[in-house]
Amino acid sequence: MNVDLILKKVMKKIEEDYSIPIEVSARHVHLSKDHIEKLFGKEYSLTIKKNLSQPGQYQYQERVNLIGPKGVITGVTILGPARDKTQVEVSRTDAIKLGIKPPVRESGDLKDSETIVISNEREVVKATESVIIAKRHIHMEPKDAEYFGVRDKQSVGVKLLSNRPVILQDVTVRVDESYKLNMHIDHDEANCAGCEEGVVGLLIV
Amino acid sequence: MNVDLILKKVMKKIEEDYSIPIEVSARHVHLSKDHIEKLFGKEYSLTIKKNLSQPGQYQYQERVNLIGPKGVITGVTILGPARDKTQVEVSRTDAIKLGIKPPVRESGDLKDSETIVISNEREVVKATESVIIAKRHIHMEPKDAEYFGVRDKQSVGVKLLSNRPVILQDVTVRVDESYKLNMHIDHDEANCAGCEEGVVGLLIV
Repeated sequence: MNVDLILKKVMKKIEEDYSIPIEVSARHVHLSKDHIEKLFGKEYSLTIKKNLSQPGQYQYQERVNLIGPKGVITGVTILGPARDKTQVEVSRTDAIKLGIKPPVRESGDLKDSETIVISNEREVVKATESVIIAKRHIHMEPKDAEYFGVRDKQSVGVKLLSNRPVILQDVTVRVDESYKLNMHIDHDEANCAGCEEGVVGLLIV
Repeated sequence: MNVDLILKKVMKKIEEDYSIPIEVSARHVHLSKDHIEKLFGKEYSLTIKKNLSQPGQYQYQERVNLIGPKGVITGVTILGPARDKTQVEVSRTDAIKLGIKPPVRESGDLKDSETIVISNEREVVKATESVIIAKRHIHMEPKDAEYFGVRDKQSVGVKLLSNRPVILQDVTVRVDESYKLNMHIDHDEANCAGCEEGVVGLLIV
């Protein structure tokens, strides 16, 4: 009996059965209806470019610029649908370039977050308390939560199975009927772990 | 007896006794004597700006530019003393900007690494097989190695005690009489973990 071989097979089985697909989110903006009107004009309707992995979420063709006190990032993606309040999600690398200090937060939690100026070729708006660094999280359906033995809002660890292995701690589990199993990390997290296309993570409770 | 309080005290004691100072290395270049001559001129002597944490290592005042197939990074630090072969250390974020795919390597291990063009205001040189992403590592003296119960070249984990906690795995221990206890990570790793000035790590064997 070869113990190493058995261990290897067990590990492979665990990886197959409990792995979570990783998706790297680039910097993006969710615009409010008011900001869409101000930036693009009253009657303007943004053009959907493609659907995202989470059902009902999509990317528009139009882009905007982020203007911070120390730097500018051009050509930033706009995601839809429109929100009640504009939310800008950047990496910490982006934040340093822009010269702002956004908090690490879950989507929607914008109190005391950072302020940024958003522009396009025709207009400029100031988005007060709008910028966060997205807290890493896993989207899953209730049946996934049951399978993994976790619950909504639980904080878990995830080992990224890359060639520069990292365990990300304090990852928020988000459970909803409408979600598709997917972990969202930003480019700092992906680059830190050397993530390549198709990388998966192992949930550690 | 308050178990939570005791646990907290024990954790604090462990953190105090076993923590490793973290240093974030920005992108930099170690130039060969040949490349220094080519870039700056035959009789030119680079000016030392400041000493680094590792004894005998310093930063020069002069800077260079890195020119990749897809992008340019200007004002890159040169570290001394001069080496036999030029070595360029960038983050993965930098590598993507430059348009190159350097391997994650220990210092000095340059076989099949990436090639980059280095320029300054007077000259341009091509540094073949010179670019790596520095593999995270801990410098320590033999007495530290004994204290932590690790040996030279051992692969360990380090939990970064930041507000965005991460366990970096496959960290190389490097033991030498001349070293000072310090863990070196790059900006991707620092940003992934949200490292602030003075952050420390806990060694996990």
